Amino acid sequence: MIDTEFIDRLFAGDVRTIARAITQVENGSTSAAELMKAVFPKTGRAMIIGITGAPGAGKSSLVDKLALHYKEIGLRVGIICIDPSSPFSGGAILGDRIRMSTLGLDKNIFIRSMATRGNLGGLSRATVDAVAILDAAGFDKVIVETVGVGQDEVEIVKAADVSVVVLVPGMGDDIQAIKAGIMEIGDVFVINKADREGVLRTQKELEALLSLAHRPDMWNPPIVKTIATENKGVEELAAAIDKYVGYAARAYGEEISDRKASIAKWRLLELLSERLLSDLLNANGTDAKLESLAAEVAAKRIDPYSAVEEILAKNHS
Amino acid sequence: MIDTEFIDRLFAGDVRTIARAITQVENGSTSAAELMKAVFPKTGRAMIIGITGAPGAGKSSLVDKLALHYKEIGLRVGIICIDPSSPFSGGAILGDRIRMSTLGLDKNIFIRSMATRGNLGGLSRATVDAVAILDAAGFDKVIVETVGVGQDEVEIVKAADVSVVVLVPGMGDDIQAIKAGIMEIGDVFVINKADREGVLRTQKELEALLSLAHRPDMWNPPIVKTIATENKGVEELAAAIDKYVGYAARAYGEEISDRKASIAKWRLLELLSERLLSDLLNANGTDAKLESLAAEVAAKRIDPYSAVEEILAKNHS
Repeated sequence: MIDTEFIDRLFAGDVRTIARAITQVENGSTSAAELMKAVFPKTGRAMIIGITGAPGAGKSSLVDKLALHYKEIGLRVGIICIDPSSPFSGGAILGDRIRMSTLGLDKNIFIRSMATRGNLGGLSRATVDAVAILDAAGFDKVIVETVGVGQDEVEIVKAADVSVVVLVPGMGDDIQAIKAGIMEIGDVFVINKADREGVLRTQKELEALLSLAHRPDMWNPPIVKTIATENKGVEELAAAIDKYVGYAARAYGEEISDRKASIAKWRLLELLSERLLSDLLNANGTDAKLESLAAEVAAKRIDPYSAVEEILAKNHS
Repeated sequence: MIDTEFIDRLFAGDVRTIARAITQVENGSTSAAELMKAVFPKTGRAMIIGITGAPGAGKSSLVDKLALHYKEIGLRVGIICIDPSSPFSGGAILGDRIRMSTLGLDKNIFIRSMATRGNLGGLSRATVDAVAILDAAGFDKVIVETVGVGQDEVEIVKAADVSVVVLVPGMGDDIQAIKAGIMEIGDVFVINKADREGVLRTQKELEALLSLAHRPDMWNPPIVKTIATENKGVEELAAAIDKYVGYAARAYGEEISDRKASIAKWRLLELLSERLLSDLLNANGTDAKLESLAAEVAAKRIDPYSAVEEILAKNHS
């Protein structure tokens, strides 16, 4: 049974309760499913902002300044940072503490890093759950910040209401490396560190790439120049974000529910995949079987495909 | 039944057969499992080199130059590029063609991009299978090049014999963004574009970060400076890679088989997860059920966790 007092404190925006709830979904405990069932009906009010870009683009500073801007105009902001660092390094937690002291810890700003845990999947599911928790806890804006441009990151950013891609000048001839995939998901582009050399060149290259991208809508993604460390361009970024979200709400209608259904399908597949695997692993003896077969595969006595068939056959009999 | 002629041509290193085999594992067709069972016993001879780093670090040029170096000394090189771009953009295929013309298409260099296909998982599994195919086809070095530093990328790079992390000068105060996770998986570090300003600073920051990292072995990761576009530092990089692989072979003994077993376990879990989900989706009516429940979730008439339970209940009855 779910603790109704816990849920009440969560909906009231209590920081410690929010943190505990996110830990539950991170651990994928059985109580997490009950929790999420209670959380779900309260979601759908926050604006979800995905922010992605290469390491070194200054995303964290930019997110912090954007959050402070929202706070100043009286909004509550939740931040989820997806961090591919090792769970052993403690880097994520240290980073949170440093950023918390910049942001000023109060009821109006919540920040949490979610690290990969070295096991399969689960990160995207846990992230989406954490966003829903912050939404239900009454935050007006929920920012999901990802380091890197991997597959999971793209999926997570796609599930946001608006996606911001952060670049820096001097990516020069390598801007092509950002590739069409990222170009296609960006609703708003930022050139951060705009006091550096090469801003104009980066802007021109970006414009050229954007003119080639095929967006399903007629939106022309704006390019905002910022210097996050000096708090320059942050209001312009907030305005560009609002403008896109307003545009999408007006322009889509039918299509927005198609998009929501495809995001929902992706979530269901993630959840199904995790449940199927955990049900299998929790079955009697599967774990030991898996360990011994992994050793056999490592010793090249059996191939992985035959090993998987053996595990599944055992389980079906 | 598997076509023995096909397998023979694959083991003989026939380029078109290799390309077709990789397409099979990408598509996850049923023949792929049979293929991989045949391939597996022939694997384990190639050196697997993982190369990762941020977009714009010049990884592609560096990989090309490293491959050309290996080719010059009489080795055969396979390259797999993991590319998070959209399957619709065609960017990956275009990129391959451009690089093929640089590398010179012959039996001794093979290059293939593998893009995410917008569906769940499968990328890591398909990549590891593709590496095994190149290994079995007799390539001496197999280079896995990843854009970005997402979770999947980290897993794939961990499965290599040696991991190379590529940085560029001028990441300045943001080198922290690379985070401890990437620091811990790098066996060799490269500062590419070493003719740019800020090399010394980047090197000092990297050294400071490396001195904090806790490696389970006593290896002190070297930092190699390269200018890939001018072919500078490439031989030094090749030497550093060989040195680490030699060190690991001598130093580990027991531990290296532990490491291989944990990689094998990760592979088995990936395969299991994919098999369980595809078995479920192929069951009668599941797909229609999934579509209709996704629409219900999008309309907020049911929460995702209850929807998943409904799908599983239907399937177990």
